[in-house]
Amino acid sequence: MSTIFSKIINGDIPCYKIAEDDRFFAFLDINPLVKGHTLVVPKQETDYLFDLDDNLLADMNVFAKKIAVAQKQVIDCKRVGVAVLGLEVPHAHIHLIPMNSEADINFRNPKLELSADEFEAIAKAIREQVRI
Amino acid sequence: MSTIFSKIINGDIPCYKIAEDDRFFAFLDINPLVKGHTLVVPKQETDYLFDLDDNLLADMNVFAKKIAVAQKQVIDCKRVGVAVLGLEVPHAHIHLIPMNSEADINFRNPKLELSADEFEAIAKAIREQVRI
Repeated sequence: MSTIFSKIINGDIPCYKIAEDDRFFAFLDINPLVKGHTLVVPKQETDYLFDLDDNLLADMNVFAKKIAVAQKQVIDCKRVGVAVLGLEVPHAHIHLIPMNSEADINFRNPKLELSADEFEAIAKAIREQVRI
Repeated sequence: MSTIFSKIINGDIPCYKIAEDDRFFAFLDINPLVKGHTLVVPKQETDYLFDLDDNLLADMNVFAKKIAVAQKQVIDCKRVGVAVLGLEVPHAHIHLIPMNSEADINFRNPKLELSADEFEAIAKAIREQVRI
């Protein structure tokens, strides 16, 4: 069975896409902790990040770095934080979270409610800065 | 000026060491969110994770995976989560946090208070499982 992230990658579920290459895909988290909160996933369905083979794990982090650099150019933040929890969706994903304080990375925080226009404007701005 | 993590790596400040190779070092967080909470750092002093060059970033994550596999064998948890915040110490570090729920990764949670014996027992148990 296809995970929700595979459905997003395949275009069966819409998303605010940031970037992709042959092995990885980045898109805005639809329940963001902060503006610009992005998910990076491998196209290969693997439940847990550290079950990825070493090469894929290594390259996924290099891909994530490129997204983070673009986020930092667009979103007003001190830096882009990283979190991997993954208890909810059985498809490895890295959260890239523009942050101004440690308190920004708390998944129990209330999620931002943004309009489709706001999501798309953020995605477009980040997308334009990504250099894959 | 040497960061606190460089002082730990150099042995100028004691730590509960988990593992090291020529480029990376892992040790227990002295203010743990949960038992087994470990930090992975590059020996090279670089403030921000995504300022590491691609090769070092890639290999650091492969090193972290090996630590996480060992943590999972020793600590009763669903999986080992990952967090990178880095606003406090200007030396890139990956938190590896054995977790049972999303709530375990919240840096505002109260920290565990463990005795030196408890820290050392945890470090020894994880250390014995690490395959670098």
